[in-house]
Order: sequence, then structure tokens, then C-alpha cells
Amino acid sequence: MNPEPMRRAIALSETARGTTSPNPPVGAVILDARGEFAGEGVTQPPGGPHAEVMALRQAGEKALGGTAYVTLEPCVHHGRTPPCAQALLDAGVSAVYYAVPDPNPVAAGGAKTLEAAGVETHEGLLREDVERGPLRAWLHYARTGRPHVTWKYASTLDGRVAAADGTSRWISSPESRAEVHGIRATLDAIVVGRGTVLADDPALTARAADGSLLPRQPLRVVVGTGEIPAGARVLDGSAETVHVRSHDPGEVLALLTGRGAVDVLLEGGPRLAGAFAAAKRIDRILAYLAPALLGSGPVALGDAGVATITGMHRWAVEGVTMSGSDVRVSATPVH
Amino acid sequence: MNPEPMRRAIALSETARGTTSPNPPVGAVILDARGEFAGEGVTQPPGGPHAEVMALRQAGEKALGGTAYVTLEPCVHHGRTPPCAQALLDAGVSAVYYAVPDPNPVAAGGAKTLEAAGVETHEGLLREDVERGPLRAWLHYARTGRPHVTWKYASTLDGRVAAADGTSRWISSPESRAEVHGIRATLDAIVVGRGTVLADDPALTARAADGSLLPRQPLRVVVGTGEIPAGARVLDGSAETVHVRSHDPGEVLALLTGRGAVDVLLEGGPRLAGAFAAAKRIDRILAYLAPALLGSGPVALGDAGVATITGMHRWAVEGVTMSGSDVRVSATPVH
Repeated sequence: MNPEPMRRAIALSETARGTTSPNPPVGAVILDARGEFAGEGVTQPPGGPHAEVMALRQAGEKALGGTAYVTLEPCVHHGRTPPCAQALLDAGVSAVYYAVPDPNPVAAGGAKTLEAAGVETHEGLLREDVERGPLRAWLHYARTGRPHVTWKYASTLDGRVAAADGTSRWISSPESRAEVHGIRATLDAIVVGRGTVLADDPALTARAADGSLLPRQPLRVVVGTGEIPAGARVLDGSAETVHVRSHDPGEVLALLTGRGAVDVLLEGGPRLAGAFAAAKRIDRILAYLAPALLGSGPVALGDAGVATITGMHRWAVEGVTMSGSDVRVSATPVH
Repeated sequence: MNPEPMRRAIALSETARGTTSPNPPVGAVILDARGEFAGEGVTQPPGGPHAEVMALRQAGEKALGGTAYVTLEPCVHHGRTPPCAQALLDAGVSAVYYAVPDPNPVAAGGAKTLEAAGVETHEGLLREDVERGPLRAWLHYARTGRPHVTWKYASTLDGRVAAADGTSRWISSPESRAEVHGIRATLDAIVVGRGTVLADDPALTARAADGSLLPRQPLRVVVGTGEIPAGARVLDGSAETVHVRSHDPGEVLALLTGRGAVDVLLEGGPRLAGAFAAAKRIDRILAYLAPALLGSGPVALGDAGVATITGMHRWAVEGVTMSGSDVRVSATPVH
């Protein structure tokens, strides 16, 4: 069993991140009966064809007797598009490898449908790569009905996000800042507190190294009861901005769900991050720790409802790598 | 050229750490003329023989025409012991590999003396391993006249060293705590602020997993103008304790130098660490970052004299590894 076509499907699906919500960014590769490449595709924006259909279109008659590699179990329900399991049957595919079973009770059953029609199906090829990678946010959304929230912050080793006078440009390395712009371009929404808008006046756009806007921009969400100053960069029109007049994470996430957001980045400040942490609504921490000391100034996380050490929120390190001169830590909650 | 004997000399020297100050913990290995093992040794406590002499004693006549591997350039000065370069000449060694040249102007010249007598000398074998490892603190001391200070702390990812009510047991993993006890046993002194004694009542001893005292105990140094409570664990007699009635890092380090301390661990609290950081008297950061969030409570580093972002103290990450469930970051200052 050759994992390479699935690797290709995963790489393809990465290119669709941020364009498919609330649908999953899926990748598909079709090999012909002799095992030669026949076609590939990714999920199109909502209302457009799914990955399997795109790959089958390219493969044409070569799909007959061939093998499909799909990052997610093919769907069987009629939504805005016809079910993909049926499209694979119609094309005469003889085997289907899929990485992750569909957690959605309405869509699930694709494998059963295919098996019943005599197609060989294999679940779990590179499953972890897909679950931790391109489908992570969507799988969380499918399971919980809530967007997946990554809390990203950049601090010094001693936990400061700005100096005593509020200045913070720049604590993290150029590589880390460029990476965050790349991540923003794959997301549905960026959430910040109004305090961050007042303090830093961030644009919250995804920009290239030369400052130009990347093709895709996430929704900008400012949380807080007070007004956003008229001249604030988040109101510059370069991307859509929503103002949520509540600090309640539940209300913020409900609004985001209503707008089809699946993959959300929480960028600050300490008060808002504390509220999300207290509500257990952070699904991943992405920390850029600069090897630097400040000794004073605001910290990354404000009150999270923890009074004593036994109430400490425990997480597990998922990965530690360097990002330029910074230490990049990714962590997930321990339940 | 075979690095293995030098690797063995380095491993030997590690065993002498914490027993030789203010002398360097050196390791030596002697091979005979055919390249077979002949003898090995480490620096004995002050007043005792140096590593080369210990290795030559074991090698006996086998040293004739042999090769010596030493982590530090052999000394030429008469201190409390005769010079090692002369001992190597007397034994008839024909070649000497040493990792690091002696930075001490009084002791230096060993290689020159050996070369003048017809012994082949080679500098720099595994030099970086020795400079970053067993001789790190001593080389710093030889260059600056001050002890090498490692600031060690354990914090949550959001930079807290205790919860809002002051409780802190335990933020770091059992593996990290065991490692710190092992490190303490190789050091000359541990320094804490009086506030830490009042808040946590630490014993500051090096203990095994079962709580028993390890054979070697560093000097315990409590910094602060007020009294140490009579029942404090640092006064339990299990190791020597000194009370320095000053927060000035210069005064603390001068006292330590006067007591022959070369390798010092600064363990807190925030105020004392801030004073050392402000005075640029921290030579290494050793941070154990637990994947946990508190959102309130004291932070690792207090005021370090930084008012704005351009004054931020910049460091460089030297290594990032896991320690149990924690992220262990080692960093050195950027000058």
C-alpha cells in the first residue's frame, strides 16, 4: 500500500484551507487501473463541487477500475452538491482509501455505500496527519458544533507581550511574524479584544513580506462593549470587520458559527484570552516565545478564573520547533 | 584522529563538577604507544592532584611514547600542585590533545612548553563540547573573575511561577524537578531571595527521588535585608547557608567569588532575578516551561530596568528539548 497518493491529497487539501468553510477542505487523488496518476482535486468554495468530483473530472474514463485516495470519507448525502460516494461508483472506481471517517451523522455512510456496491474501501491511511493537519479545525467543528479556536501569542521568555510603556514592536522574529501572516490567510476569522485595537491598532490582515495584502483575508472580529475608533486600521476596508459587543466567548463563537467560520485565530489581548481560557474555549495554543526578557509590562494571559494551583489548566505539548530565533510551542488541552 | 578518548575525558570531567572549584573540573585519558588504554583521571578537590597526574599515575610506564587527551591545556604554573605539563614530559608522553586552551595568563603556556620539549600538541579536539559543557562555568570565571550564573525557573506557558494564592506545587513535571536536584549537586552555590524563603520555605538541597540528600550539597545563599525565620528549612543544617544582607548582584557575586564559587544557580524570586537581569549578571537562562495556564499569580521576572521595547534584553536559544511534559529552554545573552 503506497501512501504517496494520500500525501499528495493532503498537500492539495492544504491549498484549500480557508476557502471551504463550513465545508471541510478535502483533497483527492485518482490513480488508473495500472496505478498511474489520473486526476486530482480539492473541495471548491461552498456550493461548488467536492474534491472527489474535481478529481474524477480530470481523470475521466481513466477512473474506471482505478483507485481513489481521499482525505475524508466520501459523503452520501445530497447537500448543495450530489453525494461523492455515488460519483465514485458512477465512474467505476474499484478501490477507495480514505484517511478519516466522516464524523457527521448526516454525511457518514460513504464507505458502507461503496462496499455494498463492491468497491474495496480502506480507512485510516495517514489518518493522524489529516486529523492534526488540514481537517483539524473542521473535525472539531463537526464534533462540537463550535469553531476551532487557536490562541496565538508572541511573548518574551518571561511571558510579557509588551514593554511597560505598551510598546511591542517587535518581540517576535521576522520569521514568526511572516508565518503568522501565512496562517491568517488560511483561516476564517481573527478575533481580538477592543483593548488590543486601542493599544496596537493592528490591521489584522494577512500580508506578504512587502506589506501587500494576500489574496484571501479572514473576517476580522473585534470583541468589546465600547466603540471602535473611527480611524482604526481594522475599519480600513481591506477585509470585512465585525464588532461583537460582548466579552462572552459563547456569544462570540455563536456569531462565528452563524457566519460559517470553522477555523478561528484568537490573537489577544490578555483579558479576552483569559475569558476564552476560563470558558475552556481554546482548542490549541500556538506560542511564539522570543528569547528575550522584559521584567515588566503586560502578560499574555489575564484572569482565567484560576485561584490556586490545583485549578491550573493543564495542556500537553504537541510540538516544539524553532521559528527564526523564537521557540514555537503548540499545545492542546488535557481533558 | 580518534575523538573517543576525548569523549571519555569529557564524561570523566562531568563527574568532577562541583568538587573542584575554584579549579576547573578537568578530565584526562592516556593511551600507550600502541594506542591502547593506559590510564584516566579527573581533577581532585582543591589541593589534590590535577587530572593529568591522576591519569599518569594509573598509566605508569605505559605512558612512555603514549598520547594524552585532556579537556584543558595542561598548566605550567606551580600552584598548590606541580605543573601538569612537566608531569607529562617526565612520563615521556609523545603527543597531547587538548580541547580548550587555558585562558588563564598565569597557567597558560602548557602547549608551548610541551612543543619546546618535542611533544606534538593538538588544540581544539571537541572544543565546543567542553566549552559548553563541563568547563563552561570555569571558563567564564577565568575570563571575568565572576562566577557563572544560571538563572533557573519553572513557569507556566503564560509566565506564572505560582497561582494567585501563592501555591506553586507543582508547576513543573517530576522529571524536571528531578533534573534540577541533579544539577544542584554539581554546583557551588544556590542563590534565592529572602522572599522565596518566606513564600515557599525551600530546603535548597540536592535530593534523590526518595527525598534523601545527595552526597554533595551546594552552598545555600539567601539574599535580602530582613531576617531569615528561625524555623526556615534553609537553616536545617543539611548544608551550609549564608545570608547576604544586600540585593546588589555585585555584592552577592563578590561574596561568592571570595568563597571560591564558580558555578552558581539563581533560583528566584522575581525581584532578585530582575536585579540580576538588570545588572547583566545572568549568563544562562534555564527555563522549564510547563504546558499549563494560570492567568494570574506572580511572574518569573520582576523589574529588570526595561522601560520600552528597544531596551528589551535579547538572548539566543542554545537548546530546546522536552523534560517530561515540560519544554526546557536554554539561552545565552546576546551582547
